[in-house]
Formats: sequence, C-alpha cells, structure tokens
Amino acid sequence: METLRWLGGPADRGGRLRLLEQTLLPRELRYVEIESVAALCDAILRLAVRGAPAIGVAGAYGVLLGAQQSSARDAAGLAIDVERAAATLFAVRPTAVNLGWATARMVEVARRAVDEGADVPVVLERLHAAAHRIHAHDRSTCQRIGDFGAALLRDGSTVLTHCNAGRLATAGIGTALAPIYVAQSQGKRVRVFADETRPLLQGARLTAFELRESGVEVTVIADNMAGKVLSEGRVDRIFVGADRIAANGDVCNKIGTYPLAVLAREHGVPFHVCAPLSTFDPHCPDGKAIPIEQRDPREVTEGFGQRTAPVGVSVYNPAFDVTPARLVASIVTEWGLVEQPDRDRVAAVLARGAAEARELRGA
Amino acid sequence: METLRWLGGPADRGGRLRLLEQTLLPRELRYVEIESVAALCDAILRLAVRGAPAIGVAGAYGVLLGAQQSSARDAAGLAIDVERAAATLFAVRPTAVNLGWATARMVEVARRAVDEGADVPVVLERLHAAAHRIHAHDRSTCQRIGDFGAALLRDGSTVLTHCNAGRLATAGIGTALAPIYVAQSQGKRVRVFADETRPLLQGARLTAFELRESGVEVTVIADNMAGKVLSEGRVDRIFVGADRIAANGDVCNKIGTYPLAVLAREHGVPFHVCAPLSTFDPHCPDGKAIPIEQRDPREVTEGFGQRTAPVGVSVYNPAFDVTPARLVASIVTEWGLVEQPDRDRVAAVLARGAAEARELRGA
Repeated sequence: METLRWLGGPADRGGRLRLLEQTLLPRELRYVEIESVAALCDAILRLAVRGAPAIGVAGAYGVLLGAQQSSARDAAGLAIDVERAAATLFAVRPTAVNLGWATARMVEVARRAVDEGADVPVVLERLHAAAHRIHAHDRSTCQRIGDFGAALLRDGSTVLTHCNAGRLATAGIGTALAPIYVAQSQGKRVRVFADETRPLLQGARLTAFELRESGVEVTVIADNMAGKVLSEGRVDRIFVGADRIAANGDVCNKIGTYPLAVLAREHGVPFHVCAPLSTFDPHCPDGKAIPIEQRDPREVTEGFGQRTAPVGVSVYNPAFDVTPARLVASIVTEWGLVEQPDRDRVAAVLARGAAEARELRGA
Repeated sequence: METLRWLGGPADRGGRLRLLEQTLLPRELRYVEIESVAALCDAILRLAVRGAPAIGVAGAYGVLLGAQQSSARDAAGLAIDVERAAATLFAVRPTAVNLGWATARMVEVARRAVDEGADVPVVLERLHAAAHRIHAHDRSTCQRIGDFGAALLRDGSTVLTHCNAGRLATAGIGTALAPIYVAQSQGKRVRVFADETRPLLQGARLTAFELRESGVEVTVIADNMAGKVLSEGRVDRIFVGADRIAANGDVCNKIGTYPLAVLAREHGVPFHVCAPLSTFDPHCPDGKAIPIEQRDPREVTEGFGQRTAPVGVSVYNPAFDVTPARLVASIVTEWGLVEQPDRDRVAAVLARGAAEARELRGA
C-alpha cells in the first residue's frame, strides 16, 4: 500500500505518477498511472488522491508532468508551461493550501533555473529533483509530527479521529495518525475511534482500512455518535488533520471537525490538530478568510449508488468547516507543539520553520 | 400518505393494520398489511414503522391483533393472550417508552373488562375502541404540540431538526415537525435544515420527503454539517422529538441529538424537544437509567447497500443518546411548554396530564 510514487528517471520524459485509487478502498486495492496534468486534476477532483499533504506532493509531480508535456524549445518557454500547469492544478481544490505551497515551490525552481541560464534538460532535471525533495520532505515531516504527537499518548490511550489524515493522506505515516503509529512502534497500545466522515466516508473506508492494515485496534462510528462516545469517557484525546491553518491558529479541516472540537471542550478532552507548516497560510488572517469548497449535492443524496433523499431536494454540502483557535489544545507540527495557538505562537513556529523552507528551496 | 390505519370493524376478527412501508421511502410509496403480532414485531424491528408515537399506536393495534388471534374461549383466557401480545411487542424496542405506555393501556382495558364480567366479543370490542382512542389521542396530541410550538416561530424562521419526528413518526402531524406545519397553516414561512441522520437516514429519506410533500422548504445536510450551519447563524431554533424523557427532564432521542444540543448552546440557539406526555417515564430518575438499544453494525458498515468499511472492523452503533435537561430550552408537550425542565417542572406537567390519562383509560 503506497499512496503515491513517481515512475521514471530524472532525464526521462515519459515519467508518470502512480496513485493508489482511493475511491475503491476498502473493497479493492488498485493503482492508476497518471501521465498528464489533466488526468491528475481529474484524480484530485474525484478524490482518487486526497489529503492536503498528499495532494501537495501529487501537485509537485503534476507540475513535473506539465514540464514533461511541454513542447517549448527553450527554458523560458518551459517555465511558462510550468506556471500554467501549477495554476491549473492549484485551481482544482481551493481550500487545501499545501497544493498551492508545493506547486509554487516548483514554479520557483523552474524560474531560478531559467535565471541561471539552464537549458531545457537541466530545468527538467531540477524539477524532477525538487518534486522528489518535496516528497521526501513530506515523509520526514510526518515522522516528526508523529514523534512529537506520540509523547501525548500513553499505553492504553484511546484517540478519536475524523476523516483520514493518515498514510493515505500523505506520502508518509500521516499527520493525525502519525502519533498513533509512532506510539505503536514504541510499544504503547493505542485504540482509535474513527468517525465514518460523511459524505465520502474517508474514516470508514480509509482510516479504518489503514489502521487495521497496521494492526491498530479501530472502531468505526457514525459522525453523530462522537458525542455519546465522548460523554461516556471513552476518549483521551482527539487528533485531526488540517487543510489550512490561518495566521491566528483557526483550523480549516474536513466538515465535522468543528463540532468535535466543541464536544471535546464540553468533556474536557484535549483537541489536537496535526499538520505540517506547509498547511499554515500566513496570508489568511483568520478562519473567516478561508474559502470553503462546496461539493456536488449528490455526494449527500446519492452516496454509494443509491438515492437516499427525494429527487430535487435542496442540499448544502460544504467540504470543510473552521475550528476557532480557542478550541485547539495544540497544533502538532514537525517543529513541535504550538500550544493554545494564537497569532504570536503561530508566527513563532513559522519563523522557526522558515529556515528549513529556505533550505528546501535552495538545495 | 398515511403512516398507519386499522382496516376492520369492532366485531370483526379479521381486522388488520395497514402501515406505510417506510424503509422504501423516498423511492417508493408502498403499504403493507399486518395481520399478526409477529408480523408487527418484524415491521417495528426493521423500522417499517418507526417514531416513538407511531410505534405506540401501532403497538396498541398490535395488542388488538393479539386478541383477534387468540383461541381463548373465555374472557380471562383472552386477557392472558392480550398480556402476552403486549409483552412480546414491548420487548422489540427497549428505548421508546410510548410502546410500553400504549400496550399497558390495552392490557388495562382487557383486565377491567374481565373484572366487569365481559364476554369475549365485548372484550374484543373494548380493545378495538381503546386502540382507536389511542390513535385519535395521538392525532390530537400532535396538533396541540404543534399549536404550542408554532408560537415559537415567526414568519421567516429557520428550524434545524434531526431524524424524523413528523407525520411519518406519529398518527398525526408529528411532534418536532408539528410546530412547522401549524406555523405554515398560519401563513408563516418556515424553512428547515434536515440532518440526514446516520445510520438509517430518516432525515434525508423521511423528513425531507414529508416536508416537500407538504410544501415546506427543506435543505438536507449531513449530520456533521450542523455545526457549520449553526456557526453561520442560519438557524433560529432546533426542534427534535424524543424516545423517552426521564423524570428530571433528560431527553433520550435518536443518536446525534446530544451533539446538536451542545452546539445549540455554543451558538445561543434555543433547543426544543417536542413530545407527548406518553414519552415521559416518571420511573426513570435520569438519563443514565434509560436503556440504550444497540443496533446491527451493518447499519454503519453497509448502510448504502454497499460495503463502506473493511470487513471485520469493530463498530459501535447505539441508536440513541441522552441530552441533559440543562441543555433544553423547553419541552413542548400537548399541555404546554416545560421551560428549562427539571424534576419539579416535569412532575407538574405530568400531574396536569394525569387527568386526561385517567379520562382516556376510563372512557
């Protein structure tokens, strides 16, 4: 089980991105090979690949696909096609910020190469290296989030999670699930309640699947059962991922995250958000400024091939909600915990991480 | 569209109960005819008929079916068969108290008739009359709940509701939806957000269906979207039904009700429970004493006719949760509002209603 992998060498113009086709899980484990920007846009849109970090890595490879497809004869022309590919990919899912982050990195790499007088093969080579660096960076970021987050778990802890922010949402061991995998590797027994996560059931389909594959004890509940589970004292901590975090620490994540945060506070259960720095958007002052993607009503009315609501009924289907920073016990990043996040603490962790970002861009 | 109707006269031993087969809604409007206690138990268990008040009325007719089926030669023997039918029906769904209330009324009627020296045809006749009285009582109770609840709504109000506590859950215009129907008849325009209500989607399938049939504007959301809808200030009041209300005002209702109550308080939105007095259980001191039915895990993992979670995964599937009385703005009963319910206020409304109950039993 591997969420995504690039097939092809640095000098190869026929490289392609292999994705685990997540819409078929848990019934079928099938991979698809993506050979164009358009095919990747389609895969992202129908959630064959999903999860903010995984979409970011896929987006980097998507820009590489765009460069490969380019018929430009010089590096400047190639850079324009790279920018076009980046813009096309970024437009597909407006909320997750990692996609914009990764594609912008790729554009920078192309531009710098052009500025340095590189020719077409060298630009392609640098883009290939940059996409692999973004991929490797996500893997190590997940591990570090897991290391920091595992310290919050003891032997016997029970975690509640929402949607899927695990191996299937990243190129590594996940964000929200990373602490669980690390704790498990440390010999701690951790149990998980997984919200099924309507409308697309990423919790039931993906989180339950990958935790079971990894030998972690998991119990699936409908989203609306979390209140009862919390009121029964069955949960020690809540871990969720994020699609975008504003400068003040407000967290945008899969629809249904915010009610969990309210319930967590009601029951004195710490609510943690696990996310890499690439998920933070310093240009977004607070949660109100985050664009919320509205998805197809049929995800609600025809989930799973059967009509479950009257034909023609109105549906409201926002893909995300915003959890105010005041409800967040800590944001677990690859640079440590941002406890009780606010504008200053978020700025501090971003400054700490900036050095690494510079290194990544410069390398 | 009629939730349930008895077909047969007072002296007729071939009477049967016609039920709207709710599992097929909204795709198909089909009725089934129930001719035995066993068939009714099955219909209740698979939720062909559901909703605490409707189950109560169906249960009364079920006891009548048990009496019809009896081969007892004398009234005392018939009364024993009546008690057996009542016990069998009551055991089918342990949480909803109306079923116990209605079947107990029927047993009392049979016993009193026997005590008065009635013969078999007279006992049958009295049971027939009693079941119809319970049916008519539910209809008028719904209307009165609607009258009291409609005063809480103004022209342009938006209500959020969970599960189905409407026409399809009662013999009348519903409990939680009754205020909406009455407000509509008063010329007020009221809009409704309907939680789809996993796992069995009574909100998407039934509430959306019956509101549309009645010309009420309804928008379906997944349960986990209610937090966002409330945070956007789109909802003026929440109306839900109840399956059992404890002596202290704690409310047991469809799973997912409790998180709504917590979110309602967070956003200053009044949370109302609409229920007849037959839903109160004075023998239940508080919510902790209410037995919570656990249902088949496949409702969660195979809810859409398609496997949506890994085979063999653990599932927790409680059918109900408990909302503490402190989160309830008022309980809307056929005897008026119990505002900020507590033990004393609940006792007061039950005392007020007791006269009517005596009248119903005695008539």
